[in-house]
This record gives sequence, C-alpha cells and structure tokens, in this order.
Amino acid sequence: MKIIIAPDSFKESMSADIAAQSIIHGFQRVFPEAEYVLLPVADGGEGTVDALVAARHGKKVSVRVANPLGMPVTAHYGLLAESQTAVIEMAQASGLMLVPIEQRNPMLTNSYGTGQLIAHALSQGVKQIILGIGGSATVDGGVGMLQALGVKFYDENRQLLGTSGNILPQIAYIDIQHIDPRLSHCKIDVACDVSNPLVGKQGSAAVFGPQKGATSEMIVELDKALDQFAGHLQNLTGTDYRYLEGGGAAGGIAVAIAALLGGELKSGIEIVMAALQFEQHLQNTDLVIIGEGSMDGQTAGGKAPIGIARLAAKHQIPVIALSGVLGEGIEALYQEGVTGVFSILPRLAPLNEVLKQGAENLENAAFNVANVLNIGRHLKNKN
Amino acid sequence: MKIIIAPDSFKESMSADIAAQSIIHGFQRVFPEAEYVLLPVADGGEGTVDALVAARHGKKVSVRVANPLGMPVTAHYGLLAESQTAVIEMAQASGLMLVPIEQRNPMLTNSYGTGQLIAHALSQGVKQIILGIGGSATVDGGVGMLQALGVKFYDENRQLLGTSGNILPQIAYIDIQHIDPRLSHCKIDVACDVSNPLVGKQGSAAVFGPQKGATSEMIVELDKALDQFAGHLQNLTGTDYRYLEGGGAAGGIAVAIAALLGGELKSGIEIVMAALQFEQHLQNTDLVIIGEGSMDGQTAGGKAPIGIARLAAKHQIPVIALSGVLGEGIEALYQEGVTGVFSILPRLAPLNEVLKQGAENLENAAFNVANVLNIGRHLKNKN
Repeated sequence: MKIIIAPDSFKESMSADIAAQSIIHGFQRVFPEAEYVLLPVADGGEGTVDALVAARHGKKVSVRVANPLGMPVTAHYGLLAESQTAVIEMAQASGLMLVPIEQRNPMLTNSYGTGQLIAHALSQGVKQIILGIGGSATVDGGVGMLQALGVKFYDENRQLLGTSGNILPQIAYIDIQHIDPRLSHCKIDVACDVSNPLVGKQGSAAVFGPQKGATSEMIVELDKALDQFAGHLQNLTGTDYRYLEGGGAAGGIAVAIAALLGGELKSGIEIVMAALQFEQHLQNTDLVIIGEGSMDGQTAGGKAPIGIARLAAKHQIPVIALSGVLGEGIEALYQEGVTGVFSILPRLAPLNEVLKQGAENLENAAFNVANVLNIGRHLKNKN
Repeated sequence: MKIIIAPDSFKESMSADIAAQSIIHGFQRVFPEAEYVLLPVADGGEGTVDALVAARHGKKVSVRVANPLGMPVTAHYGLLAESQTAVIEMAQASGLMLVPIEQRNPMLTNSYGTGQLIAHALSQGVKQIILGIGGSATVDGGVGMLQALGVKFYDENRQLLGTSGNILPQIAYIDIQHIDPRLSHCKIDVACDVSNPLVGKQGSAAVFGPQKGATSEMIVELDKALDQFAGHLQNLTGTDYRYLEGGGAAGGIAVAIAALLGGELKSGIEIVMAALQFEQHLQNTDLVIIGEGSMDGQTAGGKAPIGIARLAAKHQIPVIALSGVLGEGIEALYQEGVTGVFSILPRLAPLNEVLKQGAENLENAAFNVANVLNIGRHLKNKN
C-alpha cells in the first residue's frame, strides 16, 4: 500500500514538515509496512521554502540583503541542488512584517532586497527560481528588484535614480542593457494566486495599497506611476501589461518579472506540485492525505490542499483531509476530490492551547483515520 | 453489511435517539443499502427511559405522584409492551431537580413517589422493572418507596408513621405483611453504578448527603438511622446489608429493594443492553458505532459506550466511537475494544453554539467516517 502524505503548514501551529511527520507517526501505528511518501506542500506563500526544502532535501541559504526601507536584514532562501532550483519568498527580504506598523508607507519602500536574493541564487548556478510573492510591503512595480539585477532607471532630467525609497513616480527612462546575463539561463516561476491587474480600481495600489500603509492620495499617485511604468514597459517590449491577470500582485513585481525577466505567473500550488514531481509520485498510490490549519468553502478557490485533491481525483486516488478547524461551506471540498474531511480538534479549549497541541492532535486524528481504513479493509464486499 | 448504531445521549445536545438518527443519516449517504440496527442506549441514568422506549418501540406513561416533598408532580415512565417491562427513573418522582435549592434537606424528603411509579407499573402487569436511581433527592433508605408498596413502619410507641418527610430516624418496627403481592411476580433490576455501601465514611449519608442539602449534623443522624434500619432489615431477612456494594446508592433505596423486594443491583449499561437484546443483535454484525457527548479516560470505568465496546470486542466486531468532545486519557478506550475515536467538533466555538449544532456535526462526522471505511474497502489487501 502506497500512501502520499502531503499536508500544508498548520499556520501558527506547525510547519508542513512537522505536520507530515505527525501524520506518518499516526499511520505507522496501524500500517507499519506501508510505503509512505512525505511531500509537505505550500501554496507559494509563507512556508513554501520550508516545505520544498524538506520535501526535496534541499538546504537553506542565508543572505544579508536590504529590507523594504533599505536597512540590512538576514533573509533565507531554499536551494534544491538536485533540480538546480532556488525557492525564494519575497517576504523574507521585502515583507510587510519587516516594517514597523508606524513606518508602513509604500512611497518609501522598495523591493531591492528581493532582487538581491535572486542575484545570490543566480550566483549558485540555478536554472529555475520559484518566487513566492505573498506578504510584500511594496508598491514599486518591482523596480527595486530590477535595480538589483542591473536595470537602470533615470528621471526626466536623465539623472540616474538611486536605490532608496520608491522611485517609481520619478521614472522617465529605463536602461535594460546591463541586466544580469545569467537571467537568460534561468526560468522564474512566480507563485501568484490573485487575479488583480496592475492598474485601475482592482489594481495593485487600490486594492493592496491600504494594507501597506497607503493613504488615498498615495493610491492615486501610485496608480498613476504604475500606469506610466507600464507605458515604458510597453515601449520596450511591445506588450501592454496594464491588465495582465495577476499583474497587480505584490505591488506590480509580477509585471516586472513577466515583462523584463521572462518569468511566468502561475498558481502557487501548481508550481509547488511541479517542483515536488507530485504527479509522478501519484503513480501506484492508493491514498493521499492532505492537511491544513483551517479549511472551508474558500479553500476550494485554489489553495494547496485543493490543488492536490484535484490532481489525485484525476488519477482516481482517494483523498482524506485532516484540518485544524473546519469552516462553513466545507461541503465544497467533496466536489474537488476530497472523500473524507476531519477536524483534528479533540475538545473546546483556548486557541493558544489548541495551537500548542497541534502535532499531538494531528497524530491522533491520523491514527484513528488509519484505524477506520483498516476496519474498512476487512469489511466484506457487501453493500 | 450490518451496522449497529448504538449511541448514548449527547448530554445537553441531543437524546440517544436523535444521535442514532444523525449517525444513520451520515452513513446512509455512503452505504445506502447496508442493514442498520438502531439501538440508542443509556447507562441507567437520565435518558434511560427515552432510549429504551425508542429502541424497543415502547410508550411513555404519565402518572401524578408525590415529589420528594410530598407535593404532586407528573412523572413519566416507559412501558415496553413486548417484553412486559417498565423502565422507571427515580429522578422523575424523587429527583433532586424537583426540589428548589433552598429547600433541599434530606430530613424532609422521601422516595414515596418512586414507590407510586412502581405500583403503577405493577398495575400494567409488567414482569420486569428496570429502575434507574441517579439524581435522587432522598436519604430515606427507600422507606417512602416501601410505604407506597404496602410496607408499614411504626415508631417506638408502636404508632404508625405517616408518609410525609423522612421517617427513617423514627422507625422502630417494620410490618411487611401487606406488601404488594404483585411484586412476587415482578423482577426489579436496579441500575447501580456506584459501589458505596449503605453506612460509614463511604456510605450514603456521608458521600451523597451534602449534595442533597445535608449538614454535618444531619449526616451523623442519617448515617445512624440507616445503620438502625439495616438492623431491622437484618432481623427480617437474616442478611446484613450495611456493606452491600452499591447499597448506598440513592439514599439507600438499593438496599430496600434488595432486602424486601427481591431486586438486584446491576451495572446500568448491562441492564440496558440486556433489555435491548444487544448480544443477539451482534450476530452477523460487521461494525458497531457508539457515541456520547463526552468521552475520556474515566469513560472506561463502566459507562454505556464501554459496556458496548467490551461486548463487541468479545465478538471481535470493530467499534468506532463518535464523541462530542474527547477528554484526557482517551487512549484507555483502545484497550476496551474501541478501534477509532473521533470528536465531532468542526471548530472552536462557544459551547452553546456547539451544543445546538450537535446533530449536524454528528451526521457530518458519521458521513466522513463512512467515507473512510469505503476507501478502506477498496484498498488492496497489502500491508
């Protein structure tokens, strides 16, 4: 019997790797001789580096880079040697959590540090970069990142613009002649699960600006600057990126990568599943166990467990979900290939206690599910 | 496939009958053609009448009887016509809940109403009475009950004692000549799950007196009166009932029944399982589902689910438990024949909300367990 164990992280309780360990411990008490494949997953957001490093036996690399305000910060990214792939979370270098609440102001923040992480990964000879862009502090159109990779920006007086703050509104000319040549041998896959365009009412500044500290005046100014920037990119590439689906993610960095670095925007879980060679692992698999800290009707919108369930369903492999808590509308999961859904909660208790007992509760739930599977295996084949 | 569905009540959330309905609804969505036997159970305490009436298609009978203070109250008992059995809960007539907190005083309360219920059942021609004795307000040695069934009590001046208050301390002579003759054709099974003796430090007055409103002076007086009463019973029967295991249950009523009415003290779930013909139903059964509002390490001490699990284990039939909440030490259940234990809680929520959603949560849990069983049935027989 071959069982794939592929949980996401249980936010605030345990990483995807710990979750996978807890599940296998529960199952092994019932099926000690089954074949288990542990594939902790992530959706391209927080935990993606950890999950892929754990699943692909990669390592973590530490680099000193610039935070969104230009101050030094130590960021980590994952290096999967076997597949010459780097896994980078933008939030490690350019994340909102790196900026104290009172200093959050997208006119002053940039994505330079993310570019430094990409440059460092290129120096390791990677041929693929997986870039998770959730949780960013910036609305700079990815200009900071481009600067770190050799692109030069000038104002209307042909003065070279520096790397501090958000220079987006001042850009009049772009010089891509000195772009890092190693990029031409490296594919960048951007994990992007929003559909917002770069500009307009559903655009990057309007929708994500406020949570990054933008006032309504800043939103107007940033939206206009992004529109002008898209004009410059159109002049360079011949393509209008203003309404590219997902181009508004992470302050427009997705557009910069698509337009100038040859990158692609994809769903996070699809990138992760490809990196895990998930579909190959599904060969001869009897059962897939997925998990997440919280599942609800929304989970059906494209999060990690559903991506896996859909792929398993395509191969007619049953899927059992173990979740920290089950929200409303959970029935939607049954349409996506999930056969059984269980909360791991044993009782009502304060949230902090529940979060602390996550691994224990998950192992117990997995043990009991395995027991029921085992009962089922011995039931006669009657109706 | 034959499945027995035998939940206890989920206290404050749903009766055992509703619980059984919820479980079958969940299972039928997966196994529409399985054979289901619904045997809602109880442990001899609250809910025993409802569970047995539901499982054995009995009816409920209403009778006006005396409450513990001698005031009229409408009490219900169950009549299972097929087996000529009455199911009586002492608490319906002589329960602590019938006495306002400020009036709780075991010197003033008696069990006369319970005797009236027994007399009424005898008038229906029953050959067996199942008596649940939990939740009583009285420490009268069952004297009130005996009075209602024809036993006469006299004080030291040979004056006949009346039926108001607790006459136990005044008894000097007992006349059993006029005891209801129908009792000789009726077996009384007392559901008794405590082991306390009639008298002494672990006795009826000392241990259960305080919750019934006894002061320390009353405890001394009642313990002495119970001891004297046991002396009278010993004179009548030749047997010393002072340290009979369980004789201290419900203010000593268990001793009165054992000594003068030929009744037996048994574990509640064993009485209930016998009334349900549980062991016969286990023939050809593939799976038993049990349930209770709360299960923990203590549940292994003799409550309903464990009684069933032990019997099922004897017949090597797997048992799955669905519980409102799982307490500490739940692992003890695995030693008792339970194979899988699940909480039905989907998420953290206020208790009153959780209690309201009990039936829905139980059906969902049953549905998901059935789904996992079904996956198990289709797994190849590998390790």
